[in-house]
Amino acid sequence: MKKRLRGNMLIAQGGGPTAVINCSLVGAVRKARGYEEVEAIYGSLNGVNGIINERMVNLSFESERNLNEIAYSPSSALFSTRDKPDADYCAKIFKVLEAHNIRYFFYIGGNDSSDTLRIVKEYADNENYDLCCVHIPKTVDNDLVLNDHTPGYPSAARFVAEAFIGLDLDNRSLPGVYIAVIMGRHAGFLAAASALAQKYEDDGPHLIYLPERPFDIDSFLEDVKAVYKKHGRCVVAVSEGIQDASGQPIAVKLSEVVEKDAHGNVQLSGSGSLGDALKDYIKDNSDIDRVRADTFGYLQRSFRACASDIDRLEAEEVGEIAVIFGVEKNQSGSVTISRTGDYAVDYKLVELEEIAAKTKLMPDEFINDAGNHVTDAFRDYLRPLLGSGFSAGGARIRVPRVRPLIKKL
Amino acid sequence: MKKRLRGNMLIAQGGGPTAVINCSLVGAVRKARGYEEVEAIYGSLNGVNGIINERMVNLSFESERNLNEIAYSPSSALFSTRDKPDADYCAKIFKVLEAHNIRYFFYIGGNDSSDTLRIVKEYADNENYDLCCVHIPKTVDNDLVLNDHTPGYPSAARFVAEAFIGLDLDNRSLPGVYIAVIMGRHAGFLAAASALAQKYEDDGPHLIYLPERPFDIDSFLEDVKAVYKKHGRCVVAVSEGIQDASGQPIAVKLSEVVEKDAHGNVQLSGSGSLGDALKDYIKDNSDIDRVRADTFGYLQRSFRACASDIDRLEAEEVGEIAVIFGVEKNQSGSVTISRTGDYAVDYKLVELEEIAAKTKLMPDEFINDAGNHVTDAFRDYLRPLLGSGFSAGGARIRVPRVRPLIKKL
Repeated sequence: MKKRLRGNMLIAQGGGPTAVINCSLVGAVRKARGYEEVEAIYGSLNGVNGIINERMVNLSFESERNLNEIAYSPSSALFSTRDKPDADYCAKIFKVLEAHNIRYFFYIGGNDSSDTLRIVKEYADNENYDLCCVHIPKTVDNDLVLNDHTPGYPSAARFVAEAFIGLDLDNRSLPGVYIAVIMGRHAGFLAAASALAQKYEDDGPHLIYLPERPFDIDSFLEDVKAVYKKHGRCVVAVSEGIQDASGQPIAVKLSEVVEKDAHGNVQLSGSGSLGDALKDYIKDNSDIDRVRADTFGYLQRSFRACASDIDRLEAEEVGEIAVIFGVEKNQSGSVTISRTGDYAVDYKLVELEEIAAKTKLMPDEFINDAGNHVTDAFRDYLRPLLGSGFSAGGARIRVPRVRPLIKKL
Repeated sequence: MKKRLRGNMLIAQGGGPTAVINCSLVGAVRKARGYEEVEAIYGSLNGVNGIINERMVNLSFESERNLNEIAYSPSSALFSTRDKPDADYCAKIFKVLEAHNIRYFFYIGGNDSSDTLRIVKEYADNENYDLCCVHIPKTVDNDLVLNDHTPGYPSAARFVAEAFIGLDLDNRSLPGVYIAVIMGRHAGFLAAASALAQKYEDDGPHLIYLPERPFDIDSFLEDVKAVYKKHGRCVVAVSEGIQDASGQPIAVKLSEVVEKDAHGNVQLSGSGSLGDALKDYIKDNSDIDRVRADTFGYLQRSFRACASDIDRLEAEEVGEIAVIFGVEKNQSGSVTISRTGDYAVDYKLVELEEIAAKTKLMPDEFINDAGNHVTDAFRDYLRPLLGSGFSAGGARIRVPRVRPLIKKL
């Protein structure tokens, strides 16, 4: 086993916030406090951006009570960033790490953040600077490779499933077509979670469209019409990242101005245009009067009130495990979650290169043949992640109809 | 006291569903079961529409367990309608009530439903048909006159407040302008509920726009710019019903095709266009890069996972009280909720005419002088309604900054 590094630790959060990302922060901070080699625990504000601007806080002074409250607060307590370091940016990061004798860098984030960490680690190695870099996974998109699932996803998935329980019952009471647009740039895991709302066979969502299958507007129209004919209503979950056969996002096809972040990602959330366009298409091409569309937007990723307890515990544990790998063993890499039982997990450390900037998509066995819904294999996969206290669907009145007494009204 | 009527009871639900409307249904059914004068308890499917189509179920056969599960299910278990009866429609209703010897008609709904009930009751009186009509209040808009508040509102308000806790922390971590559009056709109570998310002075929502004050797009822009300058970010809650000085809804000004229901209400929900238009206006008229808009849409009114326990209990009680007035005392009218303590409520029965088709707005003392936020009086009003387990805001890291060591990077 390699010798433990002595010096300060830096922890930061990157990318989109989640409901449980602070559990990982607190898990790592608490565990790191137990090592005398870790002299001080710094938090960088706004991810790597806080490093190059030397905006850091000393978490060693944080009280247990406040750490506990932070763990239960959604969104990134250390704030976030979309910055993607280039060589020049890395040189600046490195200068600050060196000045503060930082020997451990823990970055909680998705595939973009792991890529940032990979670049920093490479820079440190080239400079012969001893730096242990550990990536702590999080993303509501659930799209990190080599991970069974990613902290943040289960809570966002539970929000989506909870939302669809209410929305489907709402649509049963006032029938029509209802479309909800759900986050997911490349992977449809979050939109797919809507299926967990279903209890009865005719419960919605009746259709689910994922980025993993080419989206054809006319097939969509036919699907909706068929469901509407059968049930007198239709509830649809659409991933914001749906794309046509050539790979062009439908949201981009519909939008004139396209906004991109530093990682080259097209801005999809924070607008209702995709949902409205799909709604208008149904209205314009069918006889269905009542067509509504909602876009879940930012609500789904930082909603405190229905976070999964399993997700919280795993998020905290993954922070703790990162410190075990990083400080105890002086190993750099990315912590991954594997499923080892029904339901149990185990954690491994893989090379940063294996995770960085890669995207996991929904496997074929999770998507139905028609490409417009999920399979039971997906339901079995997701159910344990939603945590305790979740149950599908709503109750229905199940008493007999009163026999009509009037022939014609 | 008037003699109790003997015959069947009919109960129905109208208008937009809520998270607790089934509590009122179950409260009324359970209470009515105790009276031998109430021979059978029928539920009409889809409100008054189920009457004229003789689509009714016999709730007398419903099990206690299922009633309990129905009470905890969001949305209208008997389904809903937007139908508004005219004289011809009333004649049909009346024919069915008579054929089934219905002597009690309980309608759970908002001001449109109470108006329907008023019309039916008037018709019955003219025909000298003994019919007891009781309106059981519900609406997420909280806009029934003579009521301190209305069942359904507290749970929807709690959803809005919960959502803004996450959304504001999200915006703190990735700063910019964030706009959320919230339900409320004429009254701003639901948008105003976003204020309960605030714990720290600089927590969002920083601005709240309500239908009770004329909305001016340029004042809006100046407000947003001022907040952004002060805090480096700005979180805004906008009621979907905001209107200009002439009373024209901003959503209608921005929309070419306008959809109306039978009560003449313009369709405002189920589209992201108002949010997107406000977002585009900020983008086009400022230097602010990151501007996002979400529309809460149907999520807010039937969300099970953060319903207020106070709201559940009151919704159930208001159903029970309706039966006490209707069956025990044979009185027609609308049940109202008054606040009698801090916090306690009492119930009264008022004439249907006093509630029907009237709209309560936010009182002046709940709105700040600038017309872009709420007052502490509003916060004091709403806080007890949100129920147990709710607390404002998130936790913050409160340790000192690390002293910068590098002069210039």
